[in-house]
Amino acid sequence: MKAFASDNYAGAHPEVLAAVAEANAGHVVAYGDDPVTARMHEVVREHFGPDALAFPVFNGTAANVLSIRAVCRPWEAVLTPASSHLHVDEAGAPERLTGNKLLTVPTPDGRLAPEDVAGCRVRIGDEHAVQPRLVSIANATELGTVYDVAATRALADAAHAHDMLLHVDGARLANAAASAGATLGELTTGAGVDVVSLGLTKNGALGAEAVVLLRPELAEGFAWLRKQHAQLASKMRFLSAQVVALLEGDLWRRNAQHANAMAQRLAAAVAGIDGIAISRPVQANAVFAVLPREQAERAREHAPFYTWDEATGEVRWMCAWDTTPEDVDAFAAALRASEVAVGG
Amino acid sequence: MKAFASDNYAGAHPEVLAAVAEANAGHVVAYGDDPVTARMHEVVREHFGPDALAFPVFNGTAANVLSIRAVCRPWEAVLTPASSHLHVDEAGAPERLTGNKLLTVPTPDGRLAPEDVAGCRVRIGDEHAVQPRLVSIANATELGTVYDVAATRALADAAHAHDMLLHVDGARLANAAASAGATLGELTTGAGVDVVSLGLTKNGALGAEAVVLLRPELAEGFAWLRKQHAQLASKMRFLSAQVVALLEGDLWRRNAQHANAMAQRLAAAVAGIDGIAISRPVQANAVFAVLPREQAERAREHAPFYTWDEATGEVRWMCAWDTTPEDVDAFAAALRASEVAVGG
Amino acid sequence: MKAFASDNYAGAHPEVLAAVAEANAGHVVAYGDDPVTARMHEVVREHFGPDALAFPVFNGTAANVLSIRAVCRPWEAVLTPASSHLHVDEAGAPERLTGNKLLTVPTPDGRLAPEDVAGCRVRIGDEHAVQPRLVSIANATELGTVYDVAATRALADAAHAHDMLLHVDGARLANAAASAGATLGELTTGAGVDVVSLGLTKNGALGAEAVVLLRPELAEGFAWLRKQHAQLASKMRFLSAQVVALLEGDLWRRNAQHANAMAQRLAAAVAGIDGIAISRPVQANAVFAVLPREQAERAREHAPFYTWDEATGEVRWMCAWDTTPEDVDAFAAALRASEVAVGG
Amino acid sequence: MKAFASDNYAGAHPEVLAAVAEANAGHVVAYGDDPVTARMHEVVREHFGPDALAFPVFNGTAANVLSIRAVCRPWEAVLTPASSHLHVDEAGAPERLTGNKLLTVPTPDGRLAPEDVAGCRVRIGDEHAVQPRLVSIANATELGTVYDVAATRALADAAHAHDMLLHVDGARLANAAASAGATLGELTTGAGVDVVSLGLTKNGALGAEAVVLLRPELAEGFAWLRKQHAQLASKMRFLSAQVVALLEGDLWRRNAQHANAMAQRLAAAVAGIDGIAISRPVQANAVFAVLPREQAERAREHAPFYTWDEATGEVRWMCAWDTTPEDVDAFAAALRASEVAVGG
Repeated sequence: MKAFASDNYAGAHPEVLAAVAEANAGHVVAYGDDPVTARMHEVVREHFGPDALAFPVFNGTAANVLSIRAVCRPWEAVLTPASSHLHVDEAGAPERLTGNKLLTVPTPDGRLAPEDVAGCRVRIGDEHAVQPRLVSIANATELGTVYDVAATRALADAAHAHDMLLHVDGARLANAAASAGATLGELTTGAGVDVVSLGLTKNGALGAEAVVLLRPELAEGFAWLRKQHAQLASKMRFLSAQVVALLEGDLWRRNAQHANAMAQRLAAAVAGIDGIAISRPVQANAVFAVLPREQAERAREHAPFYTWDEATGEVRWMCAWDTTPEDVDAFAAALRASEVAVGG
Repeated sequence: MKAFASDNYAGAHPEVLAAVAEANAGHVVAYGDDPVTARMHEVVREHFGPDALAFPVFNGTAANVLSIRAVCRPWEAVLTPASSHLHVDEAGAPERLTGNKLLTVPTPDGRLAPEDVAGCRVRIGDEHAVQPRLVSIANATELGTVYDVAATRALADAAHAHDMLLHVDGARLANAAASAGATLGELTTGAGVDVVSLGLTKNGALGAEAVVLLRPELAEGFAWLRKQHAQLASKMRFLSAQVVALLEGDLWRRNAQHANAMAQRLAAAVAGIDGIAISRPVQANAVFAVLPREQAERAREHAPFYTWDEATGEVRWMCAWDTTPEDVDAFAAALRASEVAVGG
Repeated sequence: MKAFASDNYAGAHPEVLAAVAEANAGHVVAYGDDPVTARMHEVVREHFGPDALAFPVFNGTAANVLSIRAVCRPWEAVLTPASSHLHVDEAGAPERLTGNKLLTVPTPDGRLAPEDVAGCRVRIGDEHAVQPRLVSIANATELGTVYDVAATRALADAAHAHDMLLHVDGARLANAAASAGATLGELTTGAGVDVVSLGLTKNGALGAEAVVLLRPELAEGFAWLRKQHAQLASKMRFLSAQVVALLEGDLWRRNAQHANAMAQRLAAAVAGIDGIAISRPVQANAVFAVLPREQAERAREHAPFYTWDEATGEVRWMCAWDTTPEDVDAFAAALRASEVAVGG
Repeated sequence: MKAFASDNYAGAHPEVLAAVAEANAGHVVAYGDDPVTARMHEVVREHFGPDALAFPVFNGTAANVLSIRAVCRPWEAVLTPASSHLHVDEAGAPERLTGNKLLTVPTPDGRLAPEDVAGCRVRIGDEHAVQPRLVSIANATELGTVYDVAATRALADAAHAHDMLLHVDGARLANAAASAGATLGELTTGAGVDVVSLGLTKNGALGAEAVVLLRPELAEGFAWLRKQHAQLASKMRFLSAQVVALLEGDLWRRNAQHANAMAQRLAAAVAGIDGIAISRPVQANAVFAVLPREQAERAREHAPFYTWDEATGEVRWMCAWDTTPEDVDAFAAALRASEVAVGG
């Protein structure tokens, strides 16, 4: 039985492992001047356009922090939803490693609106106030919602109209693209995005993410920033091989579509269960629901998952690339059985 | 033909890859609460003693930076040889990420002496001066030399006598232990070391290092420090599996002994070549030599290696776990042939 | 005509200048080991109790930043009202210089409530989340409201009940104490406060503030923190002389009472003017009001003041130690005249 | 009797105090938009040229740290003599507040040579190494030596030839200019200097320094950097008044010449005393000497001074703007008397 706790509970896709094993032959230059990394750069450009520059890093915290560093000067600030992973789940890494302030706004569903960008434009030029410079959204969001191409474009336009840039925390970018029916490039470069944290770990990698810079001027000195933040891999080929494995063909999309479909299946399966209310639009690979605590506790004996909000009892069920229809159906059955038990 | 440029040019040992593949089965809890990581903790304690606490991180820069953070308060400083990797090869990551000052001393062979520790104890209690708190050495050193157990113990005693702690940058700790005829524990915990950057990448991992804290009080809050510095792996099992693969049996020692033996073989093979002078004691897996630049350039066509010191023409030849006797002999032959060509 | 823009527009009280001149005689030891500084320490202890340790610094930003540094470890966070000077008026200095995250909560009137402290206690022990450690309030607040002794004590109790400490940004502590009918000690040490940014500049100094640590354990290493943040004055006697001048007798209270009284006079004087609505309780030396923009603009020709909220047209009128009744009456007359002009 | 311990033991010149008192009249805009600060900008431009931009700060640590911040990107480094105040006397403030690495070189007399600049140009473009960007010298140096205009120009040329800039820590710039027979502008702007920490505290101020940017492009965003580092004075007029008092006429030069002359007088007076050897060229307001420890201890009963080097017994005698010929003669007599006593 699989967990519904996190897409990080899943392992790596076999094709990723195979690519790493294949990359293991012989000696190659360290730190990125190797054939696998050269191929990685080609593959990233195929997705994100000819100006895209990819810098593999070890995890999403690093990709987000380095994206901020690439854009913001010391007195500049980052606008992000109050519920964003960047703000609540990085243990303060952005402040610690960048020193920049996060400006947070509450959102109804984890998605920032263009008006939020306009709203943060106060005290421009005032030396007593930080100056907003970067809009940072996650796509898909922490709440399982998705910005489609038009919504992303609207935010990019708002950002650019106000001398700001747009960063996408793409820990689940593949799920967002699959949900939006877009390519990775359409949902980023094509929509005006300036920097992407390209997440692959949740998509089936062992552990590999990349900062993808979509404006060449952001790359100046970036190699040093990556090194200085302890994110330069010596045996780079093994990070690059994971990127290639997922992005060269359509493995990224297959994995994401599958995880999204499992979330839809789960949402449908629990729709008829008494006491369970789906609490967020199910657009990517997460299902949020409110259910009685006792029911949740019983179901958790079947498969682990997280309570999202202790106050309301809202829970999160996350599907991964390797979640099977059988896993979903058994979990739904367990939820139903828990309900019966509670009701009885 | 293998390179003699860096032990980072080598790939991963097949047993490491196999362990990663084996760890890939099914769902496990993310961030370290998984069976492979539990096993990793046991294995580390078997080597470093029952109080040892291991925190896997992604690379050596991170292990070194986090070791400093675990020990030093903001106004405290780190004593390290002027030639140390920490000082010259981290692109300033220690200062950037810790804010602490490095106090450097020149050394004849990359090894710090107990007198150096005594010598840094100036202006204690003076609010205008940083306060030395951590001695940081690499074992093996950047210059291929090794501190044996007695030399390590002497430094630890000097540090402790002066209210300082001892950190070992063990990017090549396995090579040092193999050279010193000691276990990993004898060369660290047993010799009074307080914190270790346990390096495994050069020893045959895909990419895995760990901070090993040998005093329980250093661990307070360390989990947050690791997270905050973007070094907490979500799919931790894959880092842990590498540690287990190398340390559970004697793979770490086999790999290190082999690389060291290849360095000895190379040193012996070039001893008789006109114009080549071995310039450092060959104690681990590196051979340093001075030779005519033209000869070096020709030999480099056969296999890449680095010039260590542009001023003197000193070069470094590094052997890895996968360097074969045939590689060594062919390279020595190429050096000899280059010599003939130069002489001719 | 005096401005009603800021209490920083006022100069220094003549007694402060005289004290600085008096301190100027001859040679004394630099950096604080001088008789004037010794007297300053006595005076601070008379106010804040025998355990109080004062560290003069140059401005309020520094006092606030260093208060955080004295308390918080890297992964700990500061709870503060969303409207606090710390959050919105320091150009991000707290994040830049401490690296700690500020956790902000909206408040109705700039004052934090004990429930806010309880509310921030989430995810304790979770390595992905910062850990709340310090409650930081300003007294008086940015909105001219005051915590009296009971309100301060309630917050201190809430903080301590949750393993947190309480910091008071006392840029206008004298005004708060005068308003609350309390001594400085009753409003801080006596109410359970742990750290104070003691503000004197707005109270009639040339420029002098101090971090006052009320728990001896917070002082460990603090001298280095002050030096390292460029806040150690070489000719310390001149900062100390300002502290002594204001706190040795009752100059601090006279200045604060006077400024507060001028605010009351102004509030009373404008109460009857059509179109002007006092928008906040007038408890210290600030009057907040909403009035037609055109009226505000005309009145501004008479004496400068700030618009507090561009969206609502709310303005702030600030009285200083040197604001005279005549200044207030003339300004009120100007406001009335502006109103007539608008109405006409 | 005056101390010979530090020019920081002296108070403020009466003309400075008078200027501060004069600036105290009425209300002015805070944070620098006031008439005294406007005058300060004019005065600084008269000295340093029409492009000079002055930013008053509170002390020399701040001026040095902010000078680095104005110039260096995160991965860039600062070349400075190993004996520099920046490296040994700021308690690590540069690393803590800038995160940039200091590259130090030993010097015979505290003065950097153009060859030192060339010598630091290694590993340019190498992402594993910090990139040298700023040369930072003190003039006068910590050892009482002075760079004249030609020596400064030679360093500036060397810096610029290597894509670096030149910073002068001018804590004693007035003494250096008086010694070199140059104006402040000739010794900085005219000699190719790019940034100056303009020190006035030791020159007779209460406490005032300034960052003077000599290239307009360095000023971008600098106002925020100053604010963010807690160096923006609210009652700016009082800092500005000190700058004006010293620089508007020739008070700066009179004070510096006098202090320098007192050092010459002292050097001459001790030249004939048995056992005392002047150990450094006396070029500014410091005299360094080696003498028997017992003699030093006895003389210290007469007037305090510092031992510079515990190992050699070298001491530093520092003259200030208010040191009188009688102070010098009495001190020399005390030294002579101590010598007799020792000999006896």
